[in-house]
This record gives sequence, structure tokens and C-alpha cells, in this order.
Amino acid sequence: MAEAEVRRRPGGRSARVRAAVLDAALELLAAHGLEGLKVADVAARAGVHETSIYRRWGTRENLLIDALLEATGALTVPDTGSLRDDLVAYATDLAAFLATPTGHALEHTLAAAGDDPAMREARDRYWAARAGGSMQIVVRAVERGELPDTVDPRLAIEMLVSPVHFRVLLTREPIEPGMPARLVDALLGGIAVSRPPSDPAR
Amino acid sequence: MAEAEVRRRPGGRSARVRAAVLDAALELLAAHGLEGLKVADVAARAGVHETSIYRRWGTRENLLIDALLEATGALTVPDTGSLRDDLVAYATDLAAFLATPTGHALEHTLAAAGDDPAMREARDRYWAARAGGSMQIVVRAVERGELPDTVDPRLAIEMLVSPVHFRVLLTREPIEPGMPARLVDALLGGIAVSRPPSDPAR
Repeated sequence: MAEAEVRRRPGGRSARVRAAVLDAALELLAAHGLEGLKVADVAARAGVHETSIYRRWGTRENLLIDALLEATGALTVPDTGSLRDDLVAYATDLAAFLATPTGHALEHTLAAAGDDPAMREARDRYWAARAGGSMQIVVRAVERGELPDTVDPRLAIEMLVSPVHFRVLLTREPIEPGMPARLVDALLGGIAVSRPPSDPAR
Repeated sequence: MAEAEVRRRPGGRSARVRAAVLDAALELLAAHGLEGLKVADVAARAGVHETSIYRRWGTRENLLIDALLEATGALTVPDTGSLRDDLVAYATDLAAFLATPTGHALEHTLAAAGDDPAMREARDRYWAARAGGSMQIVVRAVERGELPDTVDPRLAIEMLVSPVHFRVLLTREPIEPGMPARLVDALLGGIAVSRPPSDPAR
């Protein structure tokens, strides 16, 4: 595993150590959840000294967040030039990621995580980073004139991704292939006006 | 607790037993999660024989679903005659319920629950019952002509409730008082067209 990472992320020993530690952390997270993430175990699995981890990351929570961001870094933010296409692609990618064993495990890990101050701070940073990326879809659409500049990018992205998370975590319903597009059409056009021919509401 | 229930739900010994068992199940669920829900413990706490529970509910999962539906039965489906008011009220009530200790515990219990066949079947029944109630808001709006009859009531309700669940389970962000209304306005009018004055998108 560490070997594959080296090929993917060149950059010398420091980058190799980082990749090995993050891989080890993700494997332990996926297998045992957040409670199972002990720095000593991560160090042993990655073949590094525990002190190296603390020197680089400072805290267990910093390591956790870095590992989560590394895993969800696969979720690139699309930039096709079309708001609708970007949103459909993003929701589709998110659903696909959450259907992988790693994505599924991380999602449940985040839902089960406690609320102590260090964890809360780490979680806030994680979601801020996620939102900061995905909100660019909305920001760029405003710049292109596809959305009014009064739109709330944060709420828009929450409305896009939440139904996907809702199904994965709570109802466990499958996300059928056409769902992201139906979601995006309802989000962009609204349910009251988006479906011709007749629109008695407004 | 059982005494208060008796006052609320009159109906003789059978109703009293039912109320006592469901209360006991909810208390154990909130305190220990789904794994802690043992029929023997529920029986002991409710002061009834274990066999009485099996006679009435058949399985642990049936009992679980009945207890969850009892707890979320407090979530009445509003019928004000206005789609917007109904949706805002429903999202507001849901947020308030999920902020209670019971609501919070049940939400995390459902997110953490496993996927064995009995649990899956019980969960499907639970969410079908929840959706069946809340979708009436949309169905009635179609009948009143506030929505086109091509609207998908299930998707509409998913888009309404998911951002509330997303914050409670994942980001743990507070649901500010104005959030339900902003959510409903975006859902009804769409983000691309709902904010005057200028609408370059369509």
C-alpha cells in the first residue's frame, strides 16, 4: 500500500512518510472507527515512530482531519462551465465515493464522532474545507451570471449534498443514477415552478 | 413516566402496558443505543414479562420501530392551508425535535444501526411511515393547485428534511431560527430564479 502511494505521490522521504501515515490512519479508521484511531497503532502500521507523527501533526485530531481530507480529496470540484453540469457531477461523485468501503466507513465515523472541544474543532475544519471547495461551483456560477449574487452558496451546497448523506446514513436507500439530476433540477428551478406545462402557483 | 403516559393515552390495562414498554424502550435506546436494546431489559424496566412483549410485538425490531414512531409521533404534520407555512413549520419542528435529548439519541441510533435483514426491514417501515405522513404536505398542495401534479413528493420532502439531518449528524452546526424559511424558499422557488430583482439564468 505504501509502495503504491509512493508512486502516486512523489516527493522524497517526507512525502513517503506522510502518505504511509495517512494510509495507515485511513485503514484503521475504516476498520475500527474513530475510537480505534490510536496514534501508536497508526505509527506501528505505517512503520514510523510515534514521535514522528506527533512532530508533524501535533495531535490525533489533526492527523484524523488530514487523513479524511486526503480521502475525500478524490472528490474533485468540477468546473465544466455549466452550473447544472457541475452540480450533477459533484452529487454523482459524492454518491459514488460514499458507496465505496472507505467512503462508507468515513461517513459513519464522522456521524458517530463525539463532541469534545478538540474533536469539534477538527470537525469544523474538515467541513469548512469541504464546503470551501464545493462552494466554488456556486461562486463561479454567480460570476458567469448563471445565479444572482444574492444566492447563499453554503445553503445551496448543503441542499445539494444533504439528500445524498441522508440516504447513506439514515434511510440507506440506494441513490439511483437519475437522482442527482432530479435533485439539481429541483434545486435550480424550484419544485413550484420547475415543471411545465402549467404553473398555477406563481 | 408511565403514569404521565397513562394520563395522555387512556385505554385500560393494555394501553398502559404498551405505553410502559415503549417508554422503557425509548429510555434504553436513548441511554445505550440500539445495541443496548435487549427485550429482557425493556421488560424489566417496564415491569412486564418478557413473553408479553414478544406476544404483542413479535420481534425486537418491531418493538424498536413502534418506539421510534411513538417518539416521532410528536412531529405532527401541519395543515395550515399554505404549502410554504406547512413546510417551514415541519422543518422547524423537526429541528426542535432533533435538538431534544431523545431526538438526538434516536437520530444517532438510526445512523449507527446495522444492516441485517430484520433491521433493514424495520428501518424501511420506519422511514416509509415518516415519509407517508410528511408527504401529505406536498400532496395537499398539489390538490390546492400550489404545486404542479408532476412534482415528486418524496424528493421534495427529502430535500426539506435532509439539510436538517445533515447538520445534526455530520457538521453539528446549529440550525439558526431563519434556516427553515430560507430552505423552503430555495426549495419552492429554486436558487436560480427565486431572488429578484435580476434573473439572468432563465
